[in-house]
Amino acid sequence: MPRYALKVEYHGAPFVGWQRQPDQPSVQGAIEAALAKLEPRAHTIAAAGRTDAGVHGLAQVAHCDMDKDWDPFRLSEAINYHLKPAPVAIVDCAAVPDDWHARFSALERKYLFRLLMRRAPLTHQNGLVWRVNHQLDVDAMREGAAHLLGLHDFTTFRSSICQAESPVKTLDALDIVRVETDWGPEAQFTVRARSFLHNQVRSFVGTLERVGSGGWQPDDVRRALEARDRAACGPVCPPQGLYLAGVQYPEDPFGG
Amino acid sequence: MPRYALKVEYHGAPFVGWQRQPDQPSVQGAIEAALAKLEPRAHTIAAAGRTDAGVHGLAQVAHCDMDKDWDPFRLSEAINYHLKPAPVAIVDCAAVPDDWHARFSALERKYLFRLLMRRAPLTHQNGLVWRVNHQLDVDAMREGAAHLLGLHDFTTFRSSICQAESPVKTLDALDIVRVETDWGPEAQFTVRARSFLHNQVRSFVGTLERVGSGGWQPDDVRRALEARDRAACGPVCPPQGLYLAGVQYPEDPFGG
Repeated sequence: MPRYALKVEYHGAPFVGWQRQPDQPSVQGAIEAALAKLEPRAHTIAAAGRTDAGVHGLAQVAHCDMDKDWDPFRLSEAINYHLKPAPVAIVDCAAVPDDWHARFSALERKYLFRLLMRRAPLTHQNGLVWRVNHQLDVDAMREGAAHLLGLHDFTTFRSSICQAESPVKTLDALDIVRVETDWGPEAQFTVRARSFLHNQVRSFVGTLERVGSGGWQPDDVRRALEARDRAACGPVCPPQGLYLAGVQYPEDPFGG
Repeated sequence: MPRYALKVEYHGAPFVGWQRQPDQPSVQGAIEAALAKLEPRAHTIAAAGRTDAGVHGLAQVAHCDMDKDWDPFRLSEAINYHLKPAPVAIVDCAAVPDDWHARFSALERKYLFRLLMRRAPLTHQNGLVWRVNHQLDVDAMREGAAHLLGLHDFTTFRSSICQAESPVKTLDALDIVRVETDWGPEAQFTVRARSFLHNQVRSFVGTLERVGSGGWQPDDVRRALEARDRAACGPVCPPQGLYLAGVQYPEDPFGG
């Protein structure tokens, strides 16, 4: 069966998350239903990251197996047609080898977190950022984040329902930049790792927000990490600022 | 009566426009209703620009007259409290002299238009940009836009229901930049003038899109302008990419 890689963008709000669940709207379920309009049968797709309820996709990557040979562009157009009006879009599509796997071939996942620092309620960016109503010290957050880089036991930053076999992971990057937007200053977090624990990024951001607002010292992040205790984590931040922003493969299937 | 300048941000979608209309939701009406919760009586506010249905405010400026002296920050907080859940927010507030007027004291209005060039349907930016499903030649659009700068009779680019006394206006700037965003490449138009005719910016952008897609040559914009004929205008583009992005006064009332 010809296999296709799909680059998927979606708004997380209306979904219980990426993963298909009975009688609940999921991104996976929406795409599989669209595929069933093209080739009527059960479809099962796999994705690089199983995002939680409310988390957005900017460049999620999935793959699907089709019965007939599709021109990749026409396949993406046909899926998009049947996805309407769900806020899910196939933004790129490419033929890949039979043994290419969106999840298992992935070398690294990249997440973006948008934290908007302003007092006034949101009008245009509602659901697209986490708003905190005070300014944060980005330098202090960077100093705190530096303690998290590299190979660590991330038990502190892992949801109690996380199903990963081991809490030991390597964090490749946790960059924080201040960006002036039309809606106010944002702290934008870019987080990269081969794989992530459940709620890891939101646990990082929620903890670093405590540092940025002065409640925690940067060194408290190191102490929390070393505690290897979920109770040592700062508050887990809400999902609506989080975007799965990219997946790296040995070779870019989309030729970018 | 103490007078206050308000910097106002709003999402245009749920409103018939800035201006109050009987039995229809307007931005002006929403703010006046919030003011009536603070000081119970009829309130009438004035604004620098009367935006149309669907057009957004990023930095609209209005003024209100209050009975008692308010701390400007507390006034903005109180209005925002009563505006909820309407997508309207007071993002800045300042005391101004009695003879300061949001509309008549303004020297220049600035509009931003966001045109997103991508094939795939929108997921996060729905209602916030105008999407065209092909790439546009930004250089050609710039060349066409250059013909519009300066003092002209803009009859071609003026809605037939425009109530301005004269179609002769001076266009100070019409800059177009290509910006790579997380959602794809945008052509962002920044348009500045002391005042605008009805539908002028949307008539410019719709016409320049024709140039960018190759249907018109840049010089056709000059011919359209010189025709002084509404029928010579390109299609008026939709409102959802348009933002009132700033108002200039002899002195910035917000001290920025």
